[in-house]
Amino acid sequence: MSVVTSFEGGDIPTQMARLGEAARDAAGALAMVATEAKNQALKAAAGAIRANAADILAANDADMEAAKTRGLSSAMLDRLELDDARIEAMAKGLEDIAALADPVGQVMAEWTRPNGLVISRVRVPLGVIGVIYESRPNVTADAAGLCLKAGNAVILRGGSESFHSSAAIARALHEGLKSAGLPEGSVQLVPTRDRAAVGEMLTMSQYIDIIVPRGGKSLIERVARESRIPVIKHLEGICHVYVDGAAKLGMAREIVLNAKMRRTGICGAAETLLVDERAAASHLAPIIGDLIEAGCEVRGDEAALAADDRVVAATAKDWDTEYLEPIISVKVVNGVGAAIAHIARHGSHHTEAIVTEDGAAAERFLGEIDSAIVLHNASTQFADGGEFGMGAEIGISTDKLHARGPVGVEQLTSYKYVVRGSGQVRP
Amino acid sequence: MSVVTSFEGGDIPTQMARLGEAARDAAGALAMVATEAKNQALKAAAGAIRANAADILAANDADMEAAKTRGLSSAMLDRLELDDARIEAMAKGLEDIAALADPVGQVMAEWTRPNGLVISRVRVPLGVIGVIYESRPNVTADAAGLCLKAGNAVILRGGSESFHSSAAIARALHEGLKSAGLPEGSVQLVPTRDRAAVGEMLTMSQYIDIIVPRGGKSLIERVARESRIPVIKHLEGICHVYVDGAAKLGMAREIVLNAKMRRTGICGAAETLLVDERAAASHLAPIIGDLIEAGCEVRGDEAALAADDRVVAATAKDWDTEYLEPIISVKVVNGVGAAIAHIARHGSHHTEAIVTEDGAAAERFLGEIDSAIVLHNASTQFADGGEFGMGAEIGISTDKLHARGPVGVEQLTSYKYVVRGSGQVRP
Repeated sequence: MSVVTSFEGGDIPTQMARLGEAARDAAGALAMVATEAKNQALKAAAGAIRANAADILAANDADMEAAKTRGLSSAMLDRLELDDARIEAMAKGLEDIAALADPVGQVMAEWTRPNGLVISRVRVPLGVIGVIYESRPNVTADAAGLCLKAGNAVILRGGSESFHSSAAIARALHEGLKSAGLPEGSVQLVPTRDRAAVGEMLTMSQYIDIIVPRGGKSLIERVARESRIPVIKHLEGICHVYVDGAAKLGMAREIVLNAKMRRTGICGAAETLLVDERAAASHLAPIIGDLIEAGCEVRGDEAALAADDRVVAATAKDWDTEYLEPIISVKVVNGVGAAIAHIARHGSHHTEAIVTEDGAAAERFLGEIDSAIVLHNASTQFADGGEFGMGAEIGISTDKLHARGPVGVEQLTSYKYVVRGSGQVRP
Repeated sequence: MSVVTSFEGGDIPTQMARLGEAARDAAGALAMVATEAKNQALKAAAGAIRANAADILAANDADMEAAKTRGLSSAMLDRLELDDARIEAMAKGLEDIAALADPVGQVMAEWTRPNGLVISRVRVPLGVIGVIYESRPNVTADAAGLCLKAGNAVILRGGSESFHSSAAIARALHEGLKSAGLPEGSVQLVPTRDRAAVGEMLTMSQYIDIIVPRGGKSLIERVARESRIPVIKHLEGICHVYVDGAAKLGMAREIVLNAKMRRTGICGAAETLLVDERAAASHLAPIIGDLIEAGCEVRGDEAALAADDRVVAATAKDWDTEYLEPIISVKVVNGVGAAIAHIARHGSHHTEAIVTEDGAAAERFLGEIDSAIVLHNASTQFADGGEFGMGAEIGISTDKLHARGPVGVEQLTSYKYVVRGSGQVRP
C-alpha cells in the first residue's frame, strides 16, 4: 500500500507526473498479463473490501461528519454514505467484472488478402485512463475494476468530500493487485484534495490516454472544456417517450410510467412525454393520471393542461431540462415527424422511445433520431450496460466518437492490426 | 455552385458559423439518403472533374505561378501541381469510392435479451467532419468523397497556395451533388485564405464533430494543440524493420529494401533498421549494401559503420527522425526484447515489422509492440487502406481512440443502438 501517498514534499505538477509515470509503466505491464491474473486481482480486491469493511466504514464516517459540518445537501449525503449493503455491492461488482469475458486479445476481424497476407484486427487496451468523479465513493471500485479488466491503468480523482472513503477502498484494491502480482501503479488515487490536481490531470496527455468524467453536468462541462486529453462523456439524459397515434393504450401507460417513475434519478429516466395529437383524446388523460397518482409532477402544454386539472403549465425551459426527479414535461405533437423535430431540438442524444403499432412510424423514428439508444415499444430505463448484456458500465456516452451508449470493458479498449506474411513486399 | 462564396461582407466567426449551419443541415439530410444517391453524386462529380479539367488546370496554373513567385520549394511545387494524370486519378478515386460498400445502416451486431428485447448496433454517420490540409489539391476530392460516402457533411480548409485549384475542384463536386439532388452544404470549402478561419474552425464544436488534419507534422501539432473538437490524426511514421537472428537473409534483404526504398515519401516507409546482433555478421553487410546501391544514405551505429565504409555515423537525433527521404538509420540490438524497447522509446506507434523464422519471437514482437500496424515477414509499405482491402483512406491514425490505423469509410462512422420490444418495462 505504498503507492497512494500524500503529496507532501512536492509541487502538484511534479507529483502528478510521478503518478503518470507509474501509471504508464503499469499500463505496459498490464497490456501483457494473462486474464487469470487480472481476474485474481479483482476477486482478491473484492475479498479485501469485505475484510476491510470496518475500516472503510470508519473512513466514510469521517467523510460524513465533515460533510454534515459543511452543510451538504441530503442528496449529496446520500450519495456519499456507505453501509454494509453498499460495501457488499462494491465487492460483488468486482466479482461480476472478473466473470466478464476479457476483451484484450479478442480477434475482432480477420481476413486474407490476395497476396497471402493475413490481417487481424485485435483488441488491445487503451493505456492509461483518468477517471474524475464526485461524491460516490463506490466509483473508486467500479471504475478501477472495469479499467483493470480491459488491461488499462487508471488514475482516479474522487470528490474531496469522499476523500477518506475512496482512499480506504483504494487500499483494498491494492491488496488485490498485490495478491495477483500486478503493479500497484495499475490503480492510483490522486492523494490530494487540491483542485489544482484536476487541472494538471487534464493536461497530462503524455501519460493519460483518455479522461472519463462521472458526475453532474457542471463537472462534465468543466472537464470537456479544459481537457487537452480526449474525453468520453455523458453530458445529460433528456430522454423522450413518444406515444404515437397507433400506440396501444395499455402498453403506452405501462411504458411511460416505467420510463419516468421506476427510478427518477438515473440518466435513462424519461423527462419529456410527447403524445401524437391523434392519440390525445384517448391516451393523454389516462397516462397523465397514472403519473400524477404515482407522485409525479406533470408540466404540460395547453392540451395537457386541458386533459387533467392537476397539470401545471410548462415553461420554455422545461423542454430542455433533465429533472432527475418525479417531474415530467408533456406536449402534444402532430405525428412522428413533429416528435422527431422536437427531439432534435431539445434532446441530448441519449435515449428515446416510441410506442406504436405502426411499423413504418417506428422505423422512421428509430432511423432518424440521432441518439445513442432508440427503442420501439420498450422503456427508456433499459438504457444500461447490464440490461444490454454488456456487464458493468462506467457510464453512457452521449458522444459519437469511439464509444456511444453504454461504456463497458469493450469500449475501454482500442485495437491494432496484426499482419502475418511470408516475405511479401509491395510491388 | 452557390455555396462556396467569398467571405466579403461578414466577419470570420459569422461566416464560419454560416458554413457550420449549412453543414449541420446537410448532415441531417445525408444521414438518411439512399446509397444510390450518394454513389450517383460521386460518379457525377467524377464526370464533372473530367469535363472541367481545363478549368481546373487553369486554376492550378494560377496557383503555381503565385507559388513560384513566392519561391516555394520544388517539393512543395510538386505537391501543388496538377496534370492530366492527377486529374484522372481524382476522378477515378471518386468512382472507386462509389464502388465501396456503404457503411451506413450496416448492422454491426445483433442479439436478443432474455426479456425478448432485440438489440442491434447499427452504423450511422459521424455528422460533420472538418478536414484541414496543405498544398495537395487532390485532397479536396479524396476527402470529400470519403466523407460523403460515409454520410457525413464536410468542411474543407485547403492550403492557401492551392486556393484556386481546390475551389475549381469543389465546383465540380457541387455539380455532382446537384445532379443527385443532395444539398450543396454537404461539401463546403472555406472560401478565404485568412488563417483566422482555421482557428475559428477548431472551436466550432457545435457544428463540427471531428477534425481530420492532413499534412506535415507542424500543421498536425498545431491542430491537435488548438482544437476544441476531437481530432483523428496521423502525427508521423517513424517505422521500424527488425531483422531477427532467425531471419532468412534473402527475405530480410527484400523486405528491408522494399520497406525503405519502394517509396520513401509515404508514412509507411521504414526509417530505422534494427538488426539482431546474432545476425549482424551475416546479414548486416548485404542489407546495407543493397540500400546504398539503391541510392539510400545509411546512418549507422558502430556495428553498421564497421560493416560498410560507406555508412556515416548516426547521431542521437537520427533515432527519432522521420526522414521521408532515401535515408535510413541502422542499429544493432541484442535480440527481440531490445528491439521492442528501442521501438517503445523512439517509435511513433505507426507501423513496425519483424523478419524472422522464429514464431515465438514473432508473436512476442506482434504482441508487445504498441503500434497501429505490426507485421511479420512483410514490408512496412503495406500500411495502406487500399492494401488492407478497405478501399480509399483519408490517412493512417496513430491515435488509439475511435480509429487506429487506416481511416476509411467505416472509420468515418459512429453507431447507435436500436432496441425493438413488445411492451417491455424494466422491473
